[in-house]
Amino acid sequence: MRIPLDRSSQTPVYRQIQAFLAQQIENGVLPAGTRLPSSRTLASGLGVNRITVTSAYAELEALGLIYARQGSGYYVAPRSAGLTAEGPAHSAGGDWPLWQQELLSRTWVPAQRELDELFDTIADQSVITFGGGLGDKRFFPAEDFRKALHAVLRRDGVEALGYGERAGYLPLRTTIARILASQGVPATPEHVLITSGSQQALALVAQLFLRPGDVVLVESPTYPAAIDLFRSLDVRLLGVPVDEQGMQVELVEDALRTARPRLVYTIPTFHNPTGTCLSGQRRRQLIALVDRYNTPLLEDDFVGDLRYEGRDQPALKALDPGGRVVYMGTFSKMLIPGLRVGFLVAEGPLYAGLLAYKRVTDLATSSLIQRALESYITVGRYQSHLRRAVALYRQRRDAMQRALQNHFPPGAQWTVPQGGLFFWVRLPGELSANDLFPVAIDEGVAFTPGSYFFPGARVQPYMRLNFAMLAPELIEEGIRRLSRAVDRCLGGVRMPG
Amino acid sequence: MRIPLDRSSQTPVYRQIQAFLAQQIENGVLPAGTRLPSSRTLASGLGVNRITVTSAYAELEALGLIYARQGSGYYVAPRSAGLTAEGPAHSAGGDWPLWQQELLSRTWVPAQRELDELFDTIADQSVITFGGGLGDKRFFPAEDFRKALHAVLRRDGVEALGYGERAGYLPLRTTIARILASQGVPATPEHVLITSGSQQALALVAQLFLRPGDVVLVESPTYPAAIDLFRSLDVRLLGVPVDEQGMQVELVEDALRTARPRLVYTIPTFHNPTGTCLSGQRRRQLIALVDRYNTPLLEDDFVGDLRYEGRDQPALKALDPGGRVVYMGTFSKMLIPGLRVGFLVAEGPLYAGLLAYKRVTDLATSSLIQRALESYITVGRYQSHLRRAVALYRQRRDAMQRALQNHFPPGAQWTVPQGGLFFWVRLPGELSANDLFPVAIDEGVAFTPGSYFFPGARVQPYMRLNFAMLAPELIEEGIRRLSRAVDRCLGGVRMPG
Repeated sequence: MRIPLDRSSQTPVYRQIQAFLAQQIENGVLPAGTRLPSSRTLASGLGVNRITVTSAYAELEALGLIYARQGSGYYVAPRSAGLTAEGPAHSAGGDWPLWQQELLSRTWVPAQRELDELFDTIADQSVITFGGGLGDKRFFPAEDFRKALHAVLRRDGVEALGYGERAGYLPLRTTIARILASQGVPATPEHVLITSGSQQALALVAQLFLRPGDVVLVESPTYPAAIDLFRSLDVRLLGVPVDEQGMQVELVEDALRTARPRLVYTIPTFHNPTGTCLSGQRRRQLIALVDRYNTPLLEDDFVGDLRYEGRDQPALKALDPGGRVVYMGTFSKMLIPGLRVGFLVAEGPLYAGLLAYKRVTDLATSSLIQRALESYITVGRYQSHLRRAVALYRQRRDAMQRALQNHFPPGAQWTVPQGGLFFWVRLPGELSANDLFPVAIDEGVAFTPGSYFFPGARVQPYMRLNFAMLAPELIEEGIRRLSRAVDRCLGGVRMPG
Repeated sequence: MRIPLDRSSQTPVYRQIQAFLAQQIENGVLPAGTRLPSSRTLASGLGVNRITVTSAYAELEALGLIYARQGSGYYVAPRSAGLTAEGPAHSAGGDWPLWQQELLSRTWVPAQRELDELFDTIADQSVITFGGGLGDKRFFPAEDFRKALHAVLRRDGVEALGYGERAGYLPLRTTIARILASQGVPATPEHVLITSGSQQALALVAQLFLRPGDVVLVESPTYPAAIDLFRSLDVRLLGVPVDEQGMQVELVEDALRTARPRLVYTIPTFHNPTGTCLSGQRRRQLIALVDRYNTPLLEDDFVGDLRYEGRDQPALKALDPGGRVVYMGTFSKMLIPGLRVGFLVAEGPLYAGLLAYKRVTDLATSSLIQRALESYITVGRYQSHLRRAVALYRQRRDAMQRALQNHFPPGAQWTVPQGGLFFWVRLPGELSANDLFPVAIDEGVAFTPGSYFFPGARVQPYMRLNFAMLAPELIEEGIRRLSRAVDRCLGGVRMPG
């Protein structure tokens, strides 16, 4: 235990030890039941005589703060009723330095945090929630993954616990390249960079290209965690509206010419939150535009292979004439979110730059997790998992479509998504989704309000509904409840559908 | 498989499919033996007639690029001798966009990468290496950790695979707070933020406080990965020299007044690379100075509890009158490096700001790994592991000290470290460690050249020797070899010691 001692002070050393420990005990830093170091250990560590420590302990015992147990040393006593657990005294705040107070004005509140807090307020377990951006966790292969981890630790032992290759475990990069190639996304292992989830993939690209004041072109609406990231870097967002064919690419040229963005960030396939898929023609136009205007493009393909019907569209990366597009993917949505393994595909100087930022950001992604993932995933296993996911989620999409058609009040608008995880619903009569939210909770249903997806305005008549997490019966019941909530907000007296 | 098709093109669709697949096969994106999707699957995915795909496959077969297996579909054929594996054609580079070429001039080469490459060149397995910044990996509890992972996945199932709490798994934060409290570092769980290794802890603090052009005060020499990180953010480093008592704090006030740094980064205890420990008096002076000049201080305590002798010094965090010091720690050095779990201790608006950057950087650290670590570590187990590590590494430090005394040429200088992992040796006669390195490799020994630890100058007569990774006999033999290399460089003809 490292106790600050001032040997030049007027206060005897034993009193300094006593005062320090008393403060830690009263602050709760040393909770009741904590065993104190033996007087010998503490004395030797502090370079003081053992009697000094014994004296300090004796005083603390006299104060009732610690007690001795026969043959086992001193322990922190339970709090007396008079003491309140206020937390550490030094967190009181009044005495904080000026720079802490300046942080208060400078620090933005991430939309992701507001969203978490919104959902944290839902105490009632019976609320059906269409919030969240993941697939069904009961579908995650937890048991298979446990076996893979087990096998890897048996096989590789302490090797699996080293830092590993900074770009990522080569056999895993090889598997990822093969899976991508099987989907028509050209990739070789040396162009794959493993990241700690797709959020880090996004952060690395942003850190490499962006400096405060730069402009980024995004879809409006777009992924809230991307908005948060860009705001954290003090960059300006320019939103391009989305229609049923995805980003309105005809508006992009003007933006590229006038605002000179440093980066285009897009989710072309089963866009978050609208579920739309960029048309083939627009894909080609977009690639031609970023090429002409010398602007890097980041393609976020978070659920690009979760297609339930219609025609496959090529990834933007597949249309890349060479080194124009950075591609990011993840296993979080389809397989196991908590692994925090995502990846980037990039070539040339860009790859080296991203790898340099990967090093300074967190050195490397857990080698153990990468090895276990590699041992679990093969191209064949991924594809069979994908087929099952597509079959399961298609049913759920259809269930939500039926329920919306059957129950939702007239005036609401939505497009049936051909893939992905979300319906994006425009509420009737410009009803604000933020106003609807508490009423919906009261009816026993939750969703993600649309306001969190827009770079600017905070009140929006949109909501995002995740259909992948719940069984069809729950989806049906949830949409019934949501319809009632909308009716209540509109003051309507419709008969239940 | 998503193949880019241009339906308005003059080229028939089947030829487009054929050309795309041929290119992917020739590029090696689809390696030999890859099974192609069935014509039915591909046709339905692309929204084309099945006969279109069959025609494309027939042409590819005629070209010898794919072959049919009875009842099992088409596979990519082995490469003919005429084809060379050049990698993807689009990585050829000549056609890259201008911004890629601009990146080349903008991107710095991390010292960590240069170091990795330096050590990667050592092909000879018999080279004894004093490089690296970790403890002995044979001492890492791989088997215990395997059991902990196993138990956690059995216990928590799919829960262990979710994103988990963004600040970190609460029971783990509680354990960390207790371990810190047992060492006199005041901490409560709500002030602990779990990070993906200590590198991320450093990156979060830097991202929160620093913008391009800002100044950071560091020790000179200091940790290379910190230098890399600060360079990646385009900030300017101001180095304060280190003597046997650690950072020369008497020089700090002038720097704070004139250069107005936005952050002070320090490794006060068993400093990397010098192994020195900041004196108690200087610790108090430093805290008073950052308080007076309203400057946040980041304390990197990467091996603060690995003390082999002498008197414990309080952590700077323990001297913090409230919210002045951010403290960072890690389990990488002592326990298991590849887990990528580190932590910060901070209070007030600072904590909220760091958590916001944690969210945008990688959402959260792997919940599974945190749960397994929590199930493995208790205060008692940590302390007993620490005791064993101290006993083991103390022997090795003593072995290195003896070997240096017995074998090293006169004029070399070093201080025996009271803790940590490193000796920092000044070579005789201003011999450059970079010049010594290849000669040392030739003699069968490696070390980390001192130049990587300085923000500026690249040639330095210093080297860092890690004594924790090797058994005493290997240390003795390694120092013998190193002494011979130094003698060769100095042109000396000393008799072997």
